[in-house]
Amino acid sequence: MPESTRAGVRANGAEALARPGPTTRVRIREVSGVLARDRRDDLATEEPLEIRLTGAGGTRRTVAITMRTPGHDFELAAGFLHGEGLAGPADIATIGYCLDDDVPPEARYNTVTVHLEGPIPELPALERHFLTSSACGVCGSASLEALRDRCTPLPSDSLTLAPTILYGLPDTLRKAQGVFGKTGGLHAAGLFTPDGTLLAAREDVGRHNAVDKLVGWSAMTGRLPLTDHVLMVSGRASYEIMQKALAAGVPTVCAVSAPSSLAVDLAREFGMTLVGFLRDERFNIYSGQERIDDPS
Amino acid sequence: MPESTRAGVRANGAEALARPGPTTRVRIREVSGVLARDRRDDLATEEPLEIRLTGAGGTRRTVAITMRTPGHDFELAAGFLHGEGLAGPADIATIGYCLDDDVPPEARYNTVTVHLEGPIPELPALERHFLTSSACGVCGSASLEALRDRCTPLPSDSLTLAPTILYGLPDTLRKAQGVFGKTGGLHAAGLFTPDGTLLAAREDVGRHNAVDKLVGWSAMTGRLPLTDHVLMVSGRASYEIMQKALAAGVPTVCAVSAPSSLAVDLAREFGMTLVGFLRDERFNIYSGQERIDDPS
Repeated sequence: MPESTRAGVRANGAEALARPGPTTRVRIREVSGVLARDRRDDLATEEPLEIRLTGAGGTRRTVAITMRTPGHDFELAAGFLHGEGLAGPADIATIGYCLDDDVPPEARYNTVTVHLEGPIPELPALERHFLTSSACGVCGSASLEALRDRCTPLPSDSLTLAPTILYGLPDTLRKAQGVFGKTGGLHAAGLFTPDGTLLAAREDVGRHNAVDKLVGWSAMTGRLPLTDHVLMVSGRASYEIMQKALAAGVPTVCAVSAPSSLAVDLAREFGMTLVGFLRDERFNIYSGQERIDDPS
Repeated sequence: MPESTRAGVRANGAEALARPGPTTRVRIREVSGVLARDRRDDLATEEPLEIRLTGAGGTRRTVAITMRTPGHDFELAAGFLHGEGLAGPADIATIGYCLDDDVPPEARYNTVTVHLEGPIPELPALERHFLTSSACGVCGSASLEALRDRCTPLPSDSLTLAPTILYGLPDTLRKAQGVFGKTGGLHAAGLFTPDGTLLAAREDVGRHNAVDKLVGWSAMTGRLPLTDHVLMVSGRASYEIMQKALAAGVPTVCAVSAPSSLAVDLAREFGMTLVGFLRDERFNIYSGQERIDDPS
């Protein structure tokens, strides 16, 4: 992604307007045992984000509307596009909020337009996921088969990780979760080096959005593919999370909670390491045991 | 939904074939402290489900592909259609799996076809959510505005609930989570009467799917609208969960974890009671306090 991206963001004046924050303050009633009191509470903000593409020749298309927590919206858009195989860093000219005069102020920070260097792709991935379908019948193995068209298995010559490094990841991620600390209501994703150093953490009401934001950050800072990195998510590992990690080239994914069957199938099919139930100095390895050292 | 629905289901022979179960057994490596051992583990099954509509005149259309845990698939389809305002119980003639010969056996239980009594609706809701969009700019208040076209605020003359009843719901729901107990990896939704009796519980890798299954069960057993019922979810309360509850007429929604800002906005806008952090004999009331008795 060229330098013009950030210049474009500044140039369209988006920074000058008030924008929704990651938390929202409300008055609530707290009931505990036989007591009740009114107090203030902070909620994780949830607002829709529309991601639009504009391409060469002035074509434009909305590719997604997702409920997300405001913040790191350009990363979210870039990460979503990368994960779906629609646009990589080199395909993106600029990213900006939609500031057309006919857009009401409260909606201006909920629409991100990604200007592509070339034409808008034909969006086969989106159509498969969201709406149209030609043949009758879908299944997990067909989903993996479709992924093979655009992702190759990850090489197995990555570094290995010591269990003691893994044991430390949940605590490091939790300490970086500023909004979770205030609201108790957000998913988090963290990107780590093999020695357990946290490079970046992102939070969102949507588990997949937190990962998109991390991948978008990686794209915008020239880090893709994420070979020799570890992705940690605060909840469960689903097919969608693993698919985004695979597209970003992350060989090792750790989750605080359980993986699904299809997440494990994907990890095994594409040579990824999948660790689940990583908490309290223990974990399960569901795939790619060769990247985890034996405990000692 | 007429009796022919269930007859139709039986008639197409779907019950006679092997179908994917809610759990999948795998071999894993468990690492704990300085020890490691290989063992078996049960995962929550995740497989795509395609929901298709067929209408009068032979028209057909795929309206959704969602990753879900197999089981209660017809309820999931019926609940999804109800929640999106696409079809209610009276609009549905039959529901069945897609058993066409050209469908591979492993995909047969991943496509549900809902045969409507009349024509296929124009799907404005789906288009708004998933792909197309006309105006630039979306926001939370616009999302609530759009809901007003098809949902009215709930009446406030429902029964009130004692805190002691609410305190008991999480434990009752947890005990009904058979698959969670095996896998630790599923969301749950439970439908309760005002005295805390559990009517039905459903589990799924997708939080929204668990609610769709419950609403579909309610639709197929003639219980809609769910006035004087309580919906309890095992995780967080998002906009999507509240929107499905509103469409089903549930006045009170309880969540084990936090609600999002837009979930609270929706609850307040439509006269719903929203309780969060319901665990360990305490909870927060975010909206609709008039339906909850003071503790005593």
